[in-house]
Amino acid sequence: MKPSIPKGSRDFSPQEMVKRNYIFDTIRKVYQSYGYQPIETPAMENSETLMGKYGDEGDRLIFKILNSGDFLLPFQNPLDKAFLDWKIQGQGIDKVGIYREMAPLISEKALRYDLTVPFARYVVQHRNDITFPFKRYQIQPVWRADRPQKGRYREFYQCDADVIGSDSLLNEVELIQIIDEVFTTLGVPFIIKLNNRKILQGVAEFIGAPDRMIDIATAIDKVEKINVSGVYKELQDKGFTEEQIEKLDDFLLLKKPAQNPKSMDSYELAIADLKWLRDRITDDSLEFSQPESIDKGANQLEYIFKSIRALNLDLSQKIEFDVSLARGLNYYTGTIIEVKVDVSKCKSEFTSSICGGGRYDNLTGIFGLPDVSGVGVSFGADRIYDVLEELNLFPNDIVASTKVLLINFGEKESQFCLKVLKDLHKAGISAELYPDAKKINKQFEYADKRNIPYVVSIGEKEMESGRVALKNLLTKEQIEIPLSDLITHIK
Amino acid sequence: MKPSIPKGSRDFSPQEMVKRNYIFDTIRKVYQSYGYQPIETPAMENSETLMGKYGDEGDRLIFKILNSGDFLLPFQNPLDKAFLDWKIQGQGIDKVGIYREMAPLISEKALRYDLTVPFARYVVQHRNDITFPFKRYQIQPVWRADRPQKGRYREFYQCDADVIGSDSLLNEVELIQIIDEVFTTLGVPFIIKLNNRKILQGVAEFIGAPDRMIDIATAIDKVEKINVSGVYKELQDKGFTEEQIEKLDDFLLLKKPAQNPKSMDSYELAIADLKWLRDRITDDSLEFSQPESIDKGANQLEYIFKSIRALNLDLSQKIEFDVSLARGLNYYTGTIIEVKVDVSKCKSEFTSSICGGGRYDNLTGIFGLPDVSGVGVSFGADRIYDVLEELNLFPNDIVASTKVLLINFGEKESQFCLKVLKDLHKAGISAELYPDAKKINKQFEYADKRNIPYVVSIGEKEMESGRVALKNLLTKEQIEIPLSDLITHIK
Repeated sequence: MKPSIPKGSRDFSPQEMVKRNYIFDTIRKVYQSYGYQPIETPAMENSETLMGKYGDEGDRLIFKILNSGDFLLPFQNPLDKAFLDWKIQGQGIDKVGIYREMAPLISEKALRYDLTVPFARYVVQHRNDITFPFKRYQIQPVWRADRPQKGRYREFYQCDADVIGSDSLLNEVELIQIIDEVFTTLGVPFIIKLNNRKILQGVAEFIGAPDRMIDIATAIDKVEKINVSGVYKELQDKGFTEEQIEKLDDFLLLKKPAQNPKSMDSYELAIADLKWLRDRITDDSLEFSQPESIDKGANQLEYIFKSIRALNLDLSQKIEFDVSLARGLNYYTGTIIEVKVDVSKCKSEFTSSICGGGRYDNLTGIFGLPDVSGVGVSFGADRIYDVLEELNLFPNDIVASTKVLLINFGEKESQFCLKVLKDLHKAGISAELYPDAKKINKQFEYADKRNIPYVVSIGEKEMESGRVALKNLLTKEQIEIPLSDLITHIK
Repeated sequence: MKPSIPKGSRDFSPQEMVKRNYIFDTIRKVYQSYGYQPIETPAMENSETLMGKYGDEGDRLIFKILNSGDFLLPFQNPLDKAFLDWKIQGQGIDKVGIYREMAPLISEKALRYDLTVPFARYVVQHRNDITFPFKRYQIQPVWRADRPQKGRYREFYQCDADVIGSDSLLNEVELIQIIDEVFTTLGVPFIIKLNNRKILQGVAEFIGAPDRMIDIATAIDKVEKINVSGVYKELQDKGFTEEQIEKLDDFLLLKKPAQNPKSMDSYELAIADLKWLRDRITDDSLEFSQPESIDKGANQLEYIFKSIRALNLDLSQKIEFDVSLARGLNYYTGTIIEVKVDVSKCKSEFTSSICGGGRYDNLTGIFGLPDVSGVGVSFGADRIYDVLEELNLFPNDIVASTKVLLINFGEKESQFCLKVLKDLHKAGISAELYPDAKKINKQFEYADKRNIPYVVSIGEKEMESGRVALKNLLTKEQIEIPLSDLITHIK
């Protein structure tokens, strides 16, 4: 049997762990400095907590846990059994149908798909113990039965920060500062894209397709690549009418390169675009029946852009308004945020988002706590890892290891070394004794491969003389010193 | 809908997280100082990696993941479908039988049950990239479908350290030092119990029941509570013959209080017991056909006891030989270790083990890498948490929080405060601005509940004068200082 792990999952070696912890520690430190507090939730949630929160596609990607014990128990009831027989034996029944009927009977728990929904569930469940506004961060793995591919895994870590119980836009401003601080610390060139679901919703309502917000955004997003005619074609293919497509025409302008004059920085451009957007909805010729949603979304974005600009962060070219930004999750209702690598500033072809988030006004409502607004961001640690690796941005000095190896010369010597080791540990020096009395060059080889800088040899002669041989593997220098000086020499 | 989580699982609040991290950090620091390196493995393993490694009971407790997509696909094949129909419709078929047949067809992955088996799989899979002996630590959750009860959860963290690729008993000595250092740092009074599977195996072979090692150990374990006659009865009930029970007689003596003279410390007692054990197997009247196993186990234990004693750790009364210690897991072959709270030294009734481990000679062999011995220990972080809570051993100063809250007086003031906040963060001070311009006493209440020591008020007046009000919530003192002195005052 050749050992393996499920596709889309990974092992992390000590070398990888050190790098991953560097990312987690960086994010955690920034979160803490802004007053976010850690929580953790269980890997498994009740299925009803998760289902229906991520859209149809999301629901399909949730990993389900088989009920423990006798999971066929529901089918021992004659009626249920007959039902199952009928389902399986019936001709022409679609398999997905059977699947959907049977799954809840044999599986009641599932692995979390993200950290936001479990957080909303947490807030409602523990609302009496929580001081609002509640600023929490959470760094834990999530699982998705996605088709594995480069940079996409079935188990991956999310690093989330959310504020719940405050609808102030200062929270959005703070989250953008956090994004800036994290990626500036890590050295990643980045672009923050902002949009507001209220704008998308307003546009969708304007063209008479209020439930097709995501389709519209996806099509608009492609205007730079496939031109206006291509977008038209795509919308037609998706069943939009000529009249609906015509009404969209104006909004496509927001994504056209002509709208990006070089003389404006991205702030000025965003403010200009938002003004243009508001001009449209007050234009009587467009017959905008309900302009409120777009207006509100545009105002919120303007506030955020102006506040960030006033802060004078070092990100003047890194933040932009993108009307085509949609994000897939069902629950967003206001600001949406996405961060990508700024490929114009580095040799990277990394186009996936490395951080994303947004505001959700009704998420806790599903669990019984209405009228509580939340907003949050999520850093994708795995993608950030790939970016840092690709751009060679990991610091050289983060590879921690043992500092001292004691050579094992045999029974008597190793017993002596145990005591030396004890003193080294007491002095706060990480040290180990090679456990077997193997050939000396094999033990030195071990130190070398493990990047252990100091090797101490204490043989019978040294035990008697009280002097030990200390070799520095970096300089190749070897000296003989009194055992009592060992700690001073190494520290 | 009232939100809840699956039984046996838990949420961790910020207060709990801080305490848990204190435990993890303590263990991690000790592991690192002894040269152990971190790895992580995925939550899901292929089912065949896990099944059959933990005994029948263990196998039943493994959480299985329903195949994603159409999990009923195997039953679309007419033959398989007929088989399933027959199984379900058949009268008198035991349900566990159906379960066992169907489970592997609809579930190919499972959640890890411990960290040792995934580690063995890891070592074999990555053997070409590993420097042996490989000392690794791993701190991750595991899942078991156990009946939930006080102190026993379905998701819990294990903190493991293992050395693989060395059969030196110095590794056992080191792991005992690690146990000593962790619990001494945490302040928990503890007893380390040691045994060796070779002794148990030798006894089981001696009485002609080589596969009933665990049953024998469990019975011997009860001799103090239910006396020799009770143990006899239990063995009879379990189907042991009179002759087998009679042969066990001698070994029961090892657990009898008479063997514990007060004049000996636990080391001397262990050495004496081990000598007694070796005397038995060389006693011709007992007709011991294969004494080698017991002899080897006893020698190994004696070496460990003597080495630890020579180290002069501060645990002279805390380590003992316990011939009835068995541990449930299938894979142990040599030393076995278990740590319990020393209830004689504190007001605790905590009888579960808080750390355990042992040596396994064949675990990697199952995955295709024979003749590699490993030994390791696992700290039960959740039980340790309960013990520290019960004995009030958590330090008072570990509750980290935000240091400064800026009061939000409204639009203009909050924009001003964003800049103050930026400077505080730059100076390394964790600080937050209350996001909403709510009533001032509500904002102070928030600071109080969150244990934030400093509150800074910058209203319109203060913005003009450049002086700010700084209140220390611990001393209730409020002073007015120039804004430029704020950082110096707080640091």
